[in-house]
Amino acid sequence: MPSDLDPFFSPGSVAVVGASREPHKVGHEVLANLLEGGFEGEVYPVNPHTDELLGRRCYPDLRAIGRAPDLIVICVPAPVVPSIMRQAVNIGVKAAVIITAGFKEVGEQGAQLERDVVNIARGGGMRVIGPNCLGLLAPRCKLNAGFGGKLPPLGGIGYISQSGALLSAILDIARAHKIGFSALLSIGNKADVNELDVLRSLGDDEQTTVIAGYLESIEDGHAFVQEAEQISHRKPILLMKAGGSEIGARAASSHTGSMAGAESVYESAFARAGVIRCESIKRQFDYAEAFATQPLPAGPRVAVVTNAGGLGVMAADAVEDYKLEFAELSEQTQQALREVLPPEANYHNPIDVLGDALPQRFEQAMQLALADEHVDSLLVLLTPQAVTDATGTAHRVVQVARDLAASGRQKPILASFLGAHEVEGALAVFQAGRIPWYDSPISAVRTVRRMVDYVRWRNRPKRVVKLFPINRHRVERIIDRHMRRSDWEIGEFESKEILEACGFVTPRGSLATTADQAVSIAEQINYPVVLKIWSPDILHKTEVEGVKLGINSAQEVRDAFDLMMYRVPQQRPDAQILGVLVQEMCRSGQEVILGMTRDPRFGPVMMFGMGGIYVETLQDVSFYLAPLTAEEARQMLRNTRTYQMLRGTRGREGVDMEAIAEALQRLSQLVTEFPQIQEMDINPLMVGPVGVTPIATDARIRLGHPDKPT
Amino acid sequence: MPSDLDPFFSPGSVAVVGASREPHKVGHEVLANLLEGGFEGEVYPVNPHTDELLGRRCYPDLRAIGRAPDLIVICVPAPVVPSIMRQAVNIGVKAAVIITAGFKEVGEQGAQLERDVVNIARGGGMRVIGPNCLGLLAPRCKLNAGFGGKLPPLGGIGYISQSGALLSAILDIARAHKIGFSALLSIGNKADVNELDVLRSLGDDEQTTVIAGYLESIEDGHAFVQEAEQISHRKPILLMKAGGSEIGARAASSHTGSMAGAESVYESAFARAGVIRCESIKRQFDYAEAFATQPLPAGPRVAVVTNAGGLGVMAADAVEDYKLEFAELSEQTQQALREVLPPEANYHNPIDVLGDALPQRFEQAMQLALADEHVDSLLVLLTPQAVTDATGTAHRVVQVARDLAASGRQKPILASFLGAHEVEGALAVFQAGRIPWYDSPISAVRTVRRMVDYVRWRNRPKRVVKLFPINRHRVERIIDRHMRRSDWEIGEFESKEILEACGFVTPRGSLATTADQAVSIAEQINYPVVLKIWSPDILHKTEVEGVKLGINSAQEVRDAFDLMMYRVPQQRPDAQILGVLVQEMCRSGQEVILGMTRDPRFGPVMMFGMGGIYVETLQDVSFYLAPLTAEEARQMLRNTRTYQMLRGTRGREGVDMEAIAEALQRLSQLVTEFPQIQEMDINPLMVGPVGVTPIATDARIRLGHPDKPT
Repeated sequence: MPSDLDPFFSPGSVAVVGASREPHKVGHEVLANLLEGGFEGEVYPVNPHTDELLGRRCYPDLRAIGRAPDLIVICVPAPVVPSIMRQAVNIGVKAAVIITAGFKEVGEQGAQLERDVVNIARGGGMRVIGPNCLGLLAPRCKLNAGFGGKLPPLGGIGYISQSGALLSAILDIARAHKIGFSALLSIGNKADVNELDVLRSLGDDEQTTVIAGYLESIEDGHAFVQEAEQISHRKPILLMKAGGSEIGARAASSHTGSMAGAESVYESAFARAGVIRCESIKRQFDYAEAFATQPLPAGPRVAVVTNAGGLGVMAADAVEDYKLEFAELSEQTQQALREVLPPEANYHNPIDVLGDALPQRFEQAMQLALADEHVDSLLVLLTPQAVTDATGTAHRVVQVARDLAASGRQKPILASFLGAHEVEGALAVFQAGRIPWYDSPISAVRTVRRMVDYVRWRNRPKRVVKLFPINRHRVERIIDRHMRRSDWEIGEFESKEILEACGFVTPRGSLATTADQAVSIAEQINYPVVLKIWSPDILHKTEVEGVKLGINSAQEVRDAFDLMMYRVPQQRPDAQILGVLVQEMCRSGQEVILGMTRDPRFGPVMMFGMGGIYVETLQDVSFYLAPLTAEEARQMLRNTRTYQMLRGTRGREGVDMEAIAEALQRLSQLVTEFPQIQEMDINPLMVGPVGVTPIATDARIRLGHPDKPT
Repeated sequence: MPSDLDPFFSPGSVAVVGASREPHKVGHEVLANLLEGGFEGEVYPVNPHTDELLGRRCYPDLRAIGRAPDLIVICVPAPVVPSIMRQAVNIGVKAAVIITAGFKEVGEQGAQLERDVVNIARGGGMRVIGPNCLGLLAPRCKLNAGFGGKLPPLGGIGYISQSGALLSAILDIARAHKIGFSALLSIGNKADVNELDVLRSLGDDEQTTVIAGYLESIEDGHAFVQEAEQISHRKPILLMKAGGSEIGARAASSHTGSMAGAESVYESAFARAGVIRCESIKRQFDYAEAFATQPLPAGPRVAVVTNAGGLGVMAADAVEDYKLEFAELSEQTQQALREVLPPEANYHNPIDVLGDALPQRFEQAMQLALADEHVDSLLVLLTPQAVTDATGTAHRVVQVARDLAASGRQKPILASFLGAHEVEGALAVFQAGRIPWYDSPISAVRTVRRMVDYVRWRNRPKRVVKLFPINRHRVERIIDRHMRRSDWEIGEFESKEILEACGFVTPRGSLATTADQAVSIAEQINYPVVLKIWSPDILHKTEVEGVKLGINSAQEVRDAFDLMMYRVPQQRPDAQILGVLVQEMCRSGQEVILGMTRDPRFGPVMMFGMGGIYVETLQDVSFYLAPLTAEEARQMLRNTRTYQMLRGTRGREGVDMEAIAEALQRLSQLVTEFPQIQEMDINPLMVGPVGVTPIATDARIRLGHPDKPT
């Protein structure tokens, strides 16, 4: 399928099928918007009942136009849509926006209609946006092909919305704040063109410098990550993702499965692809405006120029909260500031130019701050006080930014002028002068944080996934045997065999069916040993007293064996008991858990956390998409709160972090190469100091039922 | 000192000393503001160089007025202020606002001038706001006695700002959004009237229904908490507190001291006093508007009515994030909704009235949602779509709120109409109709969260601090002995003696100076025992290998003793070694840490956390001001992430939570009764299952140096 949506963004001619004279009808609204917007190409209203509409010649049907319009906008009732589509295909139309509702969203009958429409389109090589959408707007050719609102100014932001209703609000806000767009699309039911097509297309579009969007679901997570990762290298993608608990309800039998909610999966996918997550529409535009108008900061060091101490304090608090750095000005800069500012001013960062500062004083302070090589970005903060000239100051900010750009230096400048009427003029100057402005210093600092994150992502080393030797045959044999007999749970014993085939070390041990056998295994291993009940039906062995640690003698082995065989069936009469596993005891080391769950959209998601009871009570785990690079595996460790504890703390030796990172990579390779594996845990992996090989003490694998992909 | 600031809020006459004809001079600005604002009382400009100013008779000095004005506003240069103050006192003025800067903030000379001014005022029974402030505004009598900006409308919010510059911005925003105020004060240098006076005064003021403020410091923390707690019962206090690290730099020798930053202290103080912390000025007004206009919600159950599915999803996400509940509508409500809404609408919460909803449909849905007894608060969300009548819908929201109030039911209604031009009319209707509106559903949900928190605080049981028997004499003896010889650190041994005097149980044990003595103590206690190096100079014993656990025989005691006596001095040649403590070993149980640090402003702050290495690596601790009630002590436990672990988790017994809570209360009583104690830790307290007495295994106390209160 071609990804190119060019006919949508810059058509030479547009037909409105179902155009109408009656106000409040969608067909009227769309035609009126198209004409009012000043669309630069030809407009063909189509309606069999009239030959004139809003002063334009009206055609009875598409064929009557005499040529194929580059784009058609369909507003006729749903049942009529297929026949219009057939007509369109016949005359060679290549792009349609179907505004009409009443398709998939109303039930099976509508869904069938939608499938028909898609089939007609695909048969004729036509791309379709919608149905059940608000249309699209492309300010570059003054195209307003929808009924979401008036056309916003031309700019660098390409917007994609899964909610038409939200797009209306965004259009209204954008016009009021003069936010410029390259294109806005409401993708509705996504019958043909989906978020991925639009992403790809906006990624290739030269007019678009920032991609932003509101999504409630992502269809093909894997493709999304691949595509978004490519695009993020060229331009930032800012997404608001709503709708929390899509896969939360999925039954989960493993620790990893139960903890990897939809949120953590999206977080991982966005982190991998460099996508900047937006917490609200307001914040999305906070960020988008900065990315669209400012150069990227080289680093995290923020300088502040303000006429109000309070704003400086707020900015300083926010810089700390958002883990940025407050720039330390050079001696030279401080000296220069001292020369131009009054004696009571603050020459350190935040530079307080005082309440009586006129534009020139702001300008001098800004220039000096920007010239300092310890400064990566600049915030200009102002409150309107008695003699303040907010508008004049805004002009200076714009000029300083231009001079900086002309000098070839790249530092973002963000403004926060607090107030309303008193700063209106200034805001207009900022809009015209391409300086992003914020309703609080905190919002400005938060935006710088996102820019710094994006730069870090762009500068990260190239992803190289290391491959480890795997005995594929051994793994396949176990998986196939289970699959053949529809046994979806691979128990501890064989799960560990699979891990061994991937180069993991597991404790020595064997299965015993009698107490005597247990003793003889224990003597072979050497004490102390561990006994564990072995049953395919028991997932949490400790809950049924099915685990006994630290057994030191033959007598203790016998006692423990018999107690388990007596007690466990009492607690779980339904469970098939296959015997007792006698195992080497790993006495020292720290327990960690490694895991994986396969997300239906994004594929395998790796998990790491502190093991034992911590994983569930502290919920201190981190997630990332497989396959992992070494650096990503290390980052997973760093993303837990218990990282300090693992790394070692006063008087206490740390564990071998590289060994854990390698284990994560091996596991990531296993689940990537064997898509049959649906979920798995190594819980715990016992890890020791550097040089000591980690041991996979317990493990469990769940296979995917081929009929039920989840 | 009288707390009554009435002459400031409603003076009958005001003199402006230093009134001026020259624009841009403060004295001109203040007089002009006073006249433009339409102040209802007498205005006396004072300036010896003219007899007329802005059309008013001008007086050469205060005496020439012939009577004492209720309030004077001083704008003369700093050196002249004392003489003006003397004049004012002589003629009996009782209230002054000193706008003039150049006092404490410019150095010692200014500070002396400021002290002079305060002395004159106190001698004459006069209250002073400022100096170095923007003045005050009291819309109730149209008083604008300052140069911050124009007078905002009359309303219920009383505002206090420690930053004059910020107040300018707030005034401007308030006027634009028609936010109503009872009074606004810029308190400047707080030479006389401070935040506490204003708090008290606004607390008593009937016009003020909500107190809000921006503070950078609080002078008398203890009095602030007392006062704010009283007031919070009557009206909410919303504070933005900026300026992070006031006491962070303080040298700290205990765990508690090093972890209790200024932030946690303010959090504790605000939690205790019911103060609602605001993260930014914008959020402060988000909250203030709801508190000022809406009834309090009875509970956390939120219902949503929206014409845009996307907004409903955002609200649902936010309800989850902010741990509120999404109301489950009754069968009856759902049935009634089904009757009035179109078939494709959503009858469950969020109630989606669909994109084509006209005002009446909104109204019906709102009424039904509000009538449902499972609903505690209502959010109305709208985006402007093709046929949407935002203004008409806003009128219905206002009407529904009025009807609800008239029916005597109390449920807050909050609106979020997204957009700009398209919703302008609606916002004006909301402003006039006293419905708070938000720029996103998330902001509205966050505001409901604050309201629910406030209601919970108000409904909490009365604070009763339980008193435990303490052997005061025994505690005093140890403290006094240390104080006399300027020994500010009480070591483990005597710290535990103090704890015993408060009813704590500590492990049995004694100090040994020879290996033989150590063995005989161990035999008396019974094995296993613990050996610990005893030195006043060594705070972290494990770091120098000064702790040996699990010693099981006389030989092991000898070995451990000799190794310690040999190794520790090698590592710490400076340390005075007094011997080795031989102690009963508490083998089982969970380690927790209890602690206290005395904040210079707020007094003793208690800490609780998981003990051992967790306290520093996980930083999982909670704080609260002493003295603690039983419920506050329990809440401290609940406020840690490790709470679940303490309470017990699958297959693992929990510990005796009540015993920990009691220990916290005992410790709280000790540090309240003995203000000499500056910092202390019990680390660890070993706790076991219900019924097992906790044991204070190690403890340390630092006394306050009388000359250095911190």
